[in-house]
Order: sequence, then structure tokens, then C-alpha cells
Amino acid sequence: MSDLKFRIKAQSASAAKTIVKARNFEIIVDEPADLGGSDSAPNPVEYVLAAFAGCLNVMGHLIAGEMGFELRSLKIDISGNLNPAKLFGQSNEERAGYKTIVVRMTPDCDADDATLEKWLHSVEQRCPVSDNLQNITPVKVALVKCAVA
Amino acid sequence: MSDLKFRIKAQSASAAKTIVKARNFEIIVDEPADLGGSDSAPNPVEYVLAAFAGCLNVMGHLIAGEMGFELRSLKIDISGNLNPAKLFGQSNEERAGYKTIVVRMTPDCDADDATLEKWLHSVEQRCPVSDNLQNITPVKVALVKCAVA
Repeated sequence: MSDLKFRIKAQSASAAKTIVKARNFEIIVDEPADLGGSDSAPNPVEYVLAAFAGCLNVMGHLIAGEMGFELRSLKIDISGNLNPAKLFGQSNEERAGYKTIVVRMTPDCDADDATLEKWLHSVEQRCPVSDNLQNITPVKVALVKCAVA
Repeated sequence: MSDLKFRIKAQSASAAKTIVKARNFEIIVDEPADLGGSDSAPNPVEYVLAAFAGCLNVMGHLIAGEMGFELRSLKIDISGNLNPAKLFGQSNEERAGYKTIVVRMTPDCDADDATLEKWLHSVEQRCPVSDNLQNITPVKVALVKCAVA
């Protein structure tokens, strides 16, 4: 299969608020007041969890179909803790991002336990967002110079 | 500093569409038609890039402030390629997620090159989303059993 390319274009609206365009969609990212934002939208690390949930839902339905059982619905709760000390430049003792991400999947279906364990394993293995979080993803950052006054 | 906890609750609206609640916000995740969705919203891997952009914007402003220069605005373009073969269960040759994520940052400011290089390095090191993508993040998945009919 050929690679798929995804891209977004983002513009700061303030120090904490970002307007993101993905195809014809607009995504607003902000921070709550206690993290310096105007609390107009979810924050970046909440969007990471939302992306993960969306991906697990797609994979859950796809793989249930392959395995021959009907997934009538799927609830997904995800949480994660992070310590903001590195973010705020106060300490490098702990990593900047989530230390662990905890996912609770509640499928509504008639599959037996063994089938569901197999389903869950495949969902986690084949989910792109799961892969990018659980494994190292290279990031290349280029600086496009601003005009120096 | 104390840990911060973030959480979302998600519910499938269809095989490809997910309704996510993050605090008082709702995030809709869908897929384009060619990936099996109704194309009503960005897809999971686009949200990953949006989260990354939002995080880089917050960190960019925070660290510019620490370094004593004014960041008048910041444009961030992010793209990534992934091969959907693993997602679709056709091959395990390539990873499921983004192979590489490419970020282009265009700050509008009067900082010199050396300052901007230092700024960029700190932004990347201290950004939580950057950390979760570039390094291994443990994920614990629990299955909450559905009622077997």
C-alpha cells in the first residue's frame, strides 16, 4: 500500500491559543486559566488522549468486523499524569509528557473473553496513535527564519 | 510540583466517528470517506499533529518570555507519512503510525539566529507532546467486560 500523508497548518492566536487547520477543518487548542490560557478549548495533552480514543474506536470496529463479531458500541476512557516541572523549566528530574497513559475500553458486544483479549491485542498493535505513543517516533524540526528588524 | 491529571471520556458514534469529552469540551473525531468515515471532523492522526502544534505554540511563547524576546506570532506546519498496511491488517513490515513527523516553525520576532536555535532546542525538549511522541510512553489498557448475551 502507498503511504498516506497528513498535514496541519497552525497559527498562534495568543501565547496559549492555537488555530489549527486540518484539510477543511479548524481545531482550536487552548489552555485552562491556571496553565496560562483563556480556557476556550481543550489543551494539547487532552487532544493527544482524544486522538488516541478516536483511533482505538476505528481500530476496534475494523478488527471486530474482521473477527466476525458485532461491536454495538464502544466506550473509551483515557487518563494520564504528567509533572509540569520540566515544562515550566523548574526541573529535569521527570519527563515532560505523560508518564503512563491508562486506557479503559468497554465494548458492547457478545464476544467471549478469549475473543475479546485477542481483539484488544490487535487493536493496540495496529492502532497508529498507539504506535506513535508507545514507540519512538522521530521528529525533525526546521526553523524558518523570521525577518530580523 | 504536583502531577497534573488529564482525562477524556469517549463514546463511539459509528465505526469511524467518536465523540470525546474533555472537561466541558466536546471533540469530534472522524475519518474521511476513503478511510471509512463520514468526513465530519479531523481524523485521529490529524489530531496528533494539532496537539503537537498547540503544545509547541505554548512552549514557544513561554520560553521566548524566559529568554527575554517578544514572539509576536508563530506559524507551525506539521506533516507526517504513515503506511496503512498494518492498520488494515495487510502487512507488519512497516510500523502502524507516523514514520517521521516533520515540523516547520516560523516565529515572527527580532531574536538572532543563535538565540533562536537555543529557543528551538528548549521548546522541543520541554514540550510534553514532543516528549510523548519522541520517547517511549507506557500505555496500560484494561478491558471492561461487556455483558455476554
